Amino acid sequence: MVEIRDRVRFVETDAMGVVHHANYLRWFEMGRVAYLKEADVYLNPLMEEGIVFPITDVSCKYRSSGRFDDEIAIETTAEAITPVKMVFNYTVRRLADGVVLATGRTQNVFTNKEGKIIRLPAKYYDKLSQLAALDKVEC
Amino acid sequence: MVEIRDRVRFVETDAMGVVHHANYLRWFEMGRVAYLKEADVYLNPLMEEGIVFPITDVSCKYRSSGRFDDEIAIETTAEAITPVKMVFNYTVRRLADGVVLATGRTQNVFTNKEGKIIRLPAKYYDKLSQLAALDKVEC
Amino acid sequence: MVEIRDRVRFVETDAMGVVHHANYLRWFEMGRVAYLKEADVYLNPLMEEGIVFPITDVSCKYRSSGRFDDEIAIETTAEAITPVKMVFNYTVRRLADGVVLATGRTQNVFTNKEGKIIRLPAKYYDKLSQLAALDKVEC
Amino acid sequence: MVEIRDRVRFVETDAMGVVHHANYLRWFEMGRVAYLKEADVYLNPLMEEGIVFPITDVSCKYRSSGRFDDEIAIETTAEAITPVKMVFNYTVRRLADGVVLATGRTQNVFTNKEGKIIRLPAKYYDKLSQLAALDKVEC
Repeated sequence: MVEIRDRVRFVETDAMGVVHHANYLRWFEMGRVAYLKEADVYLNPLMEEGIVFPITDVSCKYRSSGRFDDEIAIETTAEAITPVKMVFNYTVRRLADGVVLATGRTQNVFTNKEGKIIRLPAKYYDKLSQLAALDKVEC
Repeated sequence: MVEIRDRVRFVETDAMGVVHHANYLRWFEMGRVAYLKEADVYLNPLMEEGIVFPITDVSCKYRSSGRFDDEIAIETTAEAITPVKMVFNYTVRRLADGVVLATGRTQNVFTNKEGKIIRLPAKYYDKLSQLAALDKVEC
Repeated sequence: MVEIRDRVRFVETDAMGVVHHANYLRWFEMGRVAYLKEADVYLNPLMEEGIVFPITDVSCKYRSSGRFDDEIAIETTAEAITPVKMVFNYTVRRLADGVVLATGRTQNVFTNKEGKIIRLPAKYYDKLSQLAALDKVEC
Repeated sequence: MVEIRDRVRFVETDAMGVVHHANYLRWFEMGRVAYLKEADVYLNPLMEEGIVFPITDVSCKYRSSGRFDDEIAIETTAEAITPVKMVFNYTVRRLADGVVLATGRTQNVFTNKEGKIIRLPAKYYDKLSQLAALDKVEC
């Protein structure tokens, strides 16, 4: 599990006075990027090699409303890592009281720039699957 | 079914050269607002009465990548309308070739400003459920 | 002058209940894209040729607050078009009462993908400068 | 001068492969919020008292392109603090090489929820003007 922390930006609120729900997908993305970094996998070199990683599936359950300036923790765990896809789970928690604001799940595939599904090269996959194996042990 | 049309904005793209996936939630919201309008239900008066409508659930399957300046159609249908929640389904289609970019589903509940679930007043609910009934007939 | 119309999206509001100020830059961009299209200049082919058009300067004066669902007009005029830069002026107006919400100005330069300033090819520049000349006549 | 640090999010990039220019306004806002906090002024209590703080003016000069995952510093200084307005200056710098990505300036006024300009209560103004006085001394 990889945790990052951030604060709700003012621009992330809406006229109901709470965080707009689309922002959770941005936070999941930040969690995913941090998870990959923890595995020593960086997206810029991947893109330079012509590998992209479109999202194919996302879901989110909203449990409590985040508000401006809330300090939040975004916890990311790998549900499945294969050479063709990555599935992650997320929990967004407010630090002040530990309340879960949302939980979610995403699936990415690896493709070339023409959109054809490809296998993630072993130099990346091995590092990623090793970190993901630790998530299983933790559970 | 209520359809609206729009064009992909440049700001909606990301460094992979395609629409960033979080924007589909914004488009679903526009579809939902248009659906409610079609039923003669407007969000500003609702909020003035102290009724808010937080999203509790969202999911999206991405099927093809949208690109800058693509003209898109957002089709919204009601799956379930009750006095305490609204469930909508969405299809986002590229107009040039009819390709489905994404399909999705959202659930909103009605609450007061303190976050307590409330029943949507009949003056709104009746209009909304009448329009939703037509979606059933269409299917 | 090229005018486009749109409606304030819910996601474009913030916890003060009004349009978040950063959205006006997105609307200026939409106005600019529409202006270029009116001159028969499209950004996708430009980018395919390796021409990009970074913003170097932006300013905005906010005069009145936009609100959710306001119908707005974005008026774009060219202040200066040269082979190396484009300067545009914008007025965002609420259609219901004609009130000006904001006025702004942007400057773009043309560069290659390495960020070196280049001259816009004549096939684009000629069309763009012809349309811009009409703005002078109108004033 | 108050400095905060952050990283460019993937969602903040656009199809030119760089940070979309509208995001700098979001970063300025984060700098401004941090500056106010340093002066012990928090926006949530202000809003609960019915005081809002709309932006009336913003400008930004873009000097170099930010890219995904760049670590950035946002430096905020007060140019002028009066009971009716706040003017701030910003510099956004990439930490890896110290390059300035953008400089900017914003003006906020204080208003009630009906949009009428009001004077910031002394309990807030005094703290804010004391911190701002230090910026003058630093220059």
